[in-house]
Amino acid sequence: MPAKSVQSTYGDKIYEGKAKILYRGPKDTILHYFKDSATAFNAQKKAEFDGKGQMNLKISVLLFDYLKMHGIESHLIKQIDDRTFESLSLKMIPAEVVVRNRVAGSLAKRLGEDEGAILNPPTVEFYLKDDAKGDPLVSEDLMVSLFHQKREDLLRMRELALKINSALLVLFQKAKLNLIDFKLEFGKTPGGKILLADEISPDCCRLWDMATGEKLDKDRFRHDLGDLMTGYQIVYDRLIEALK
Amino acid sequence: MPAKSVQSTYGDKIYEGKAKILYRGPKDTILHYFKDSATAFNAQKKAEFDGKGQMNLKISVLLFDYLKMHGIESHLIKQIDDRTFESLSLKMIPAEVVVRNRVAGSLAKRLGEDEGAILNPPTVEFYLKDDAKGDPLVSEDLMVSLFHQKREDLLRMRELALKINSALLVLFQKAKLNLIDFKLEFGKTPGGKILLADEISPDCCRLWDMATGEKLDKDRFRHDLGDLMTGYQIVYDRLIEALK
Repeated sequence: MPAKSVQSTYGDKIYEGKAKILYRGPKDTILHYFKDSATAFNAQKKAEFDGKGQMNLKISVLLFDYLKMHGIESHLIKQIDDRTFESLSLKMIPAEVVVRNRVAGSLAKRLGEDEGAILNPPTVEFYLKDDAKGDPLVSEDLMVSLFHQKREDLLRMRELALKINSALLVLFQKAKLNLIDFKLEFGKTPGGKILLADEISPDCCRLWDMATGEKLDKDRFRHDLGDLMTGYQIVYDRLIEALK
Repeated sequence: MPAKSVQSTYGDKIYEGKAKILYRGPKDTILHYFKDSATAFNAQKKAEFDGKGQMNLKISVLLFDYLKMHGIESHLIKQIDDRTFESLSLKMIPAEVVVRNRVAGSLAKRLGEDEGAILNPPTVEFYLKDDAKGDPLVSEDLMVSLFHQKREDLLRMRELALKINSALLVLFQKAKLNLIDFKLEFGKTPGGKILLADEISPDCCRLWDMATGEKLDKDRFRHDLGDLMTGYQIVYDRLIEALK
């Protein structure tokens, strides 16, 4: 939780999620406060990690800035402090958009396929963002016919997700990190433009060391593979080095 | 199992499934022998129903003939006897293509949605045909990138599935039956043309009486809702009447 002195400069709390708290900011903006909490398996496993909030904020801002340089806009306006950034207030689309370059995680388990199998071309899947339902995989058709999304919005999210993947692959390649898969969220401006939203951090990417295969992302926590923050720090240091 | 006198005129057994046995027929054809077995929940529930094989054969032939009149070709060549039809030998595509007009079954359960909710427009989903994996739902992207299907084949199956749905909705409307959902399979000719294959019967459709909502399909067996064959007989009688 933010210290009271900080919180008092924020507007009303809008929403508290598993890893972030959202507050109203000035002039129709949102303030995203990054917590130290980690959850996995639909919040059945929980823990706190000192400094995770700051780390995920740093990495998210770094990646949003990198994507902006590559022509991909996000909701990010500016960093406020070491745990908070200010964003546009978007109408969020209730979908988790998952891009995969290799088989891993729930996909490997569900389909009985080997972790690490290459997916060529990369795939895009939509999961309904609904904790009560366990964020189920949903076909694009059902997103339209049952969950009231517009087909053109899904096509745009898919297009953006693949463009983001292409840009990130270049950066992570330089950082000697295999980008296995990642989850994105999108929102809409009042004018109807779809922008990248939420965060991009090792909480929602799978990143394997290219040389050793070591997992440097939240799977360390999910499957007790080693200290979480050590992994995240390696990701951050490598990204800083790659961007020099 | 077919009587020996019949079986002896058939070629080698190619495959025995849950509800049919396939034999080699003359000149690169396949003979489909319809059994009386019913299975549900990935074959965890099993039973035999006198006359189900003949009934599903009759309904399948009737529906394939109806679809042919509406410009949709299938693998059916001709009926051989009251449990067997002869078909072209196609290279089967390992997908179950599910068309839905309303929410029901596994979808209702998985997404926590009400049975009967209308899907507009109708939806198409691909399930990997793989008993060992439990026929999992698979995105079109994964069908391409992991399971080696061609994007153009998936688009063609989708197009055909929706065309079949439109044609069947007209017929079932006349028969005062609500076509809730159904599963199709497709195969490819040596020339690369995709044709409707397998069967279309109350084993793989959900059909509800328009007046009473009574379920007349395999859900009677899955959920012990009443005598299976009584339901199938009503479907057949109504179709015969609708086609007059």
